[in-house]
Amino acid sequence: MPVPAETTYNGKPLSQLFAEERSGWSGYVEWEKYPEKKALAREILKTHTFPHPPEFQFVPLPDTNPVLIGYRWKDYHKALGLQSIVNYSWEVVQKEKPDLIHLLDFPYNGETTRDQLLEGKITDNMHHFVRNHGGVPAIEEDAFELEIGGLVNNPVKLSLKDLKDPSKFPQCEVTVTLQCSGTRRIEQIREYPGDGDELINAPWGEGAIGTAVYRGVPLKKVLKRACGGVLPECQHLEFIGGDTYFKKGNVFNYAVSVPYRKVRMNEEVILAWEMNGKPLPKIHGAPLRLVVTGYIGARSCKWVYQINALAEPSMGPVQSQEYLYYTSQLGKQNVKYSNGFSIQQMPVSSAIISPVDKSVIVHDGSIELKGWGYSGGGNWVERVEVSPDGGHVWYAVQPEDMTEKHYHAWRLWKIKLPVDAEGWLEFCVRTWDSSNNTEPTFVRSAWNWDLHVTSSCHRIKIYSVNKTRPATAKRLEELRARGESIEPLTRPLEYTIEGQDEYLTACKNYPREPLS
Amino acid sequence: MPVPAETTYNGKPLSQLFAEERSGWSGYVEWEKYPEKKALAREILKTHTFPHPPEFQFVPLPDTNPVLIGYRWKDYHKALGLQSIVNYSWEVVQKEKPDLIHLLDFPYNGETTRDQLLEGKITDNMHHFVRNHGGVPAIEEDAFELEIGGLVNNPVKLSLKDLKDPSKFPQCEVTVTLQCSGTRRIEQIREYPGDGDELINAPWGEGAIGTAVYRGVPLKKVLKRACGGVLPECQHLEFIGGDTYFKKGNVFNYAVSVPYRKVRMNEEVILAWEMNGKPLPKIHGAPLRLVVTGYIGARSCKWVYQINALAEPSMGPVQSQEYLYYTSQLGKQNVKYSNGFSIQQMPVSSAIISPVDKSVIVHDGSIELKGWGYSGGGNWVERVEVSPDGGHVWYAVQPEDMTEKHYHAWRLWKIKLPVDAEGWLEFCVRTWDSSNNTEPTFVRSAWNWDLHVTSSCHRIKIYSVNKTRPATAKRLEELRARGESIEPLTRPLEYTIEGQDEYLTACKNYPREPLS
Repeated sequence: MPVPAETTYNGKPLSQLFAEERSGWSGYVEWEKYPEKKALAREILKTHTFPHPPEFQFVPLPDTNPVLIGYRWKDYHKALGLQSIVNYSWEVVQKEKPDLIHLLDFPYNGETTRDQLLEGKITDNMHHFVRNHGGVPAIEEDAFELEIGGLVNNPVKLSLKDLKDPSKFPQCEVTVTLQCSGTRRIEQIREYPGDGDELINAPWGEGAIGTAVYRGVPLKKVLKRACGGVLPECQHLEFIGGDTYFKKGNVFNYAVSVPYRKVRMNEEVILAWEMNGKPLPKIHGAPLRLVVTGYIGARSCKWVYQINALAEPSMGPVQSQEYLYYTSQLGKQNVKYSNGFSIQQMPVSSAIISPVDKSVIVHDGSIELKGWGYSGGGNWVERVEVSPDGGHVWYAVQPEDMTEKHYHAWRLWKIKLPVDAEGWLEFCVRTWDSSNNTEPTFVRSAWNWDLHVTSSCHRIKIYSVNKTRPATAKRLEELRARGESIEPLTRPLEYTIEGQDEYLTACKNYPREPLS
Repeated sequence: MPVPAETTYNGKPLSQLFAEERSGWSGYVEWEKYPEKKALAREILKTHTFPHPPEFQFVPLPDTNPVLIGYRWKDYHKALGLQSIVNYSWEVVQKEKPDLIHLLDFPYNGETTRDQLLEGKITDNMHHFVRNHGGVPAIEEDAFELEIGGLVNNPVKLSLKDLKDPSKFPQCEVTVTLQCSGTRRIEQIREYPGDGDELINAPWGEGAIGTAVYRGVPLKKVLKRACGGVLPECQHLEFIGGDTYFKKGNVFNYAVSVPYRKVRMNEEVILAWEMNGKPLPKIHGAPLRLVVTGYIGARSCKWVYQINALAEPSMGPVQSQEYLYYTSQLGKQNVKYSNGFSIQQMPVSSAIISPVDKSVIVHDGSIELKGWGYSGGGNWVERVEVSPDGGHVWYAVQPEDMTEKHYHAWRLWKIKLPVDAEGWLEFCVRTWDSSNNTEPTFVRSAWNWDLHVTSSCHRIKIYSVNKTRPATAKRLEELRARGESIEPLTRPLEYTIEGQDEYLTACKNYPREPLS
């Protein structure tokens, strides 16, 4: 039963029940301050049946773009009269992210293509991946206000003008790689299906990662100068965003937290309004977002309008019930929110971006590979190693073939490997970070129920055609003369590959059976 | 450009050019005795463009039955005015094999289902797999004639009545497992795509194998009594079948050969007309076929009407150009017919038939597995071992849990394994034969360009739910009370899996972050 586009509930207009209450704030509903609104939304949601999340773990991924359609999440919004958020969000996608792989249309999950990933150390704003958890609100800069409360000496409300005033708060620029903990999840899915939660664990490839220079103010400075510092009991800072989030029939504003220990590191947690020298795009959290370096992207709360100083981590479902790292032996029958550990800092990981898995490479004895390596928690990439034989022999990337070091950013790399063998070969990459961490060898080594953090050595299969070999060169020449191609690999050649005389001679020299 | 259903070529009716020349032999064309007919067919084939074989190695297999459609092969027949063979063959499939998985509709490739495989030591005729290389001819018993020539003392022609006369030739019954060398090919395809020849390398699962009791006469006795024996130069016996075969624009009758050394073993190479006490089904080669024990099924020529004693193996394309075992490093750019070795005897192999890969098993501490083990060349299955942990610990199947030994047949087996762990587990099986041969550990160990003989340990992934564990039992009880199921595994539970109080207590006992 599809959810009807209702405008009333018990005779009352939904637009009044869940009104846009702040002028200049469109597509935003305040939930956290109104328990009665949350209760009412829960009642309304109970009256509907929602579509199941799409199945893509036991069946092939659709060959479409958008790849997956967020029917369930759209219907949640529709049921509460918030259809306009869905529509507006897709308008923003088309304007700000026309060229991404649209992995999920709503809430929008968009992946950077290979070419765009290799553009350079900095990802263009238009090409930077997006992983949203709800719709995109439209908040006017002048109407924006950030409220800071909880365990601080002085709760305050700050305008964007206040925050941007360098006489009030010192500004900084930080080069930051943000990464979804779902990056390369497709490799886990291919091995074993896992969790399919309300907000589906999107089947990301290698492009749920990107790097930008963010300008803003350290949250630490704002807490100190505007709020007179935090109280001694404060251990965590909770961030609340303008997007509406759903979990098992309940409605929330997006909420996450990071430890105060992290915030104290100044430039490691900033309130940002600029991305690569340009105003923050709407889809990336304009007018204001958090940027938390070295952490899972989910903590870098977008459209942040409230910050609460807390003694404990946020009880918001995104913090307490999601982005948890379970063991491989703990599944649907045993999972609890408390028996996974919270994914905050990201481990060392890497990916081969070029060539593409399962491609045929005709080469003259060497193959060039390109990709990225990254580590969180302030660890930088020290060494990238690539193997042409599934992980037996490893070649180190030369320093001149990597982009420069940053404390909180990836390094792009390239390497040309000697390749003698032909046929299917497995290439893999592993990165070592400045703490000597490296990656698990196989996906199985780190498969986990929620399918997070696929940081095992990235592996691709390449079909090698080495034209320095005379027989191969001869065959390629024959193909060219006949106007045929070696690809598609599985399409038969139209001509006989060995004449009868040659066959008989070969069989005479090396008989098929013993002679006695 | 689709091939038109032409009835003439250069003004002459195709039905005259490629006539059914023997009365009572329908759907059979003699090619091997008429080089001019072969040349003409080649000319005609050149005037058409044929569809490419279907691509299924780089994309998911269609979810249909028939799974694949043999457009190309059908068009070859159509181009020579042999459309009726295509039509008749499908009629025979529907009558004789209604319940198989129709992997390829023409030439017919049908796979036995799991239930049918586990029916018992003997596979019912209706359920026995079929791998044909051309259409099914309809040959009346009374009109049938077998011609034996080449390096024999006396070339002869024998009627079926002659052959079945026990006063002329001693009869025998042999229990034989026949196996396509493509069995379990899908595992190779999933790892790396390979050859896609004219007659596609079908994506078989575990069901391209079956066992029957065949009645007939040893070929050796026929050669001796009817032909006065073979000449000293005779090293191979070539079998020619009534089906029409195509290879790179040329047309043939199906032809293969086996060494005379094999034929000399009497009951190991028989001319059979009965299968499991019933007349040989049309689709299995009626009225007469070869049954070659311990060899790849392809040598057990169906509708055999001619046998030639030769000094060398058959030059027919099925023998000389196909069923070759290439190395993994030799691919499309280097393959020749002479640089693979001929697949005659089959190696030891096995498969887990139940449970099915990627299924969820709710159990009380043990899981039962069933399957088959087989070895060719007269080796019997001595031991079957099953591992619940990907191949570290192995449990041997007890003798009473295996079907009885035969020199030339599989053994079905079952075993109940203790399983404590939950979540995704990998089970695998390996068989040891009477020559102490066992299976390669991984598909990669034996991947080969033509994708033949997938005899590595068969592996399945099972999601284990151990209800002897209290927490699991409790969750299952809760699911039952709510009318929900643990499956589909990737569908989220609708209810909260941990209350806030329980979560907070757990986080107090085991805090998410260090306290200092």
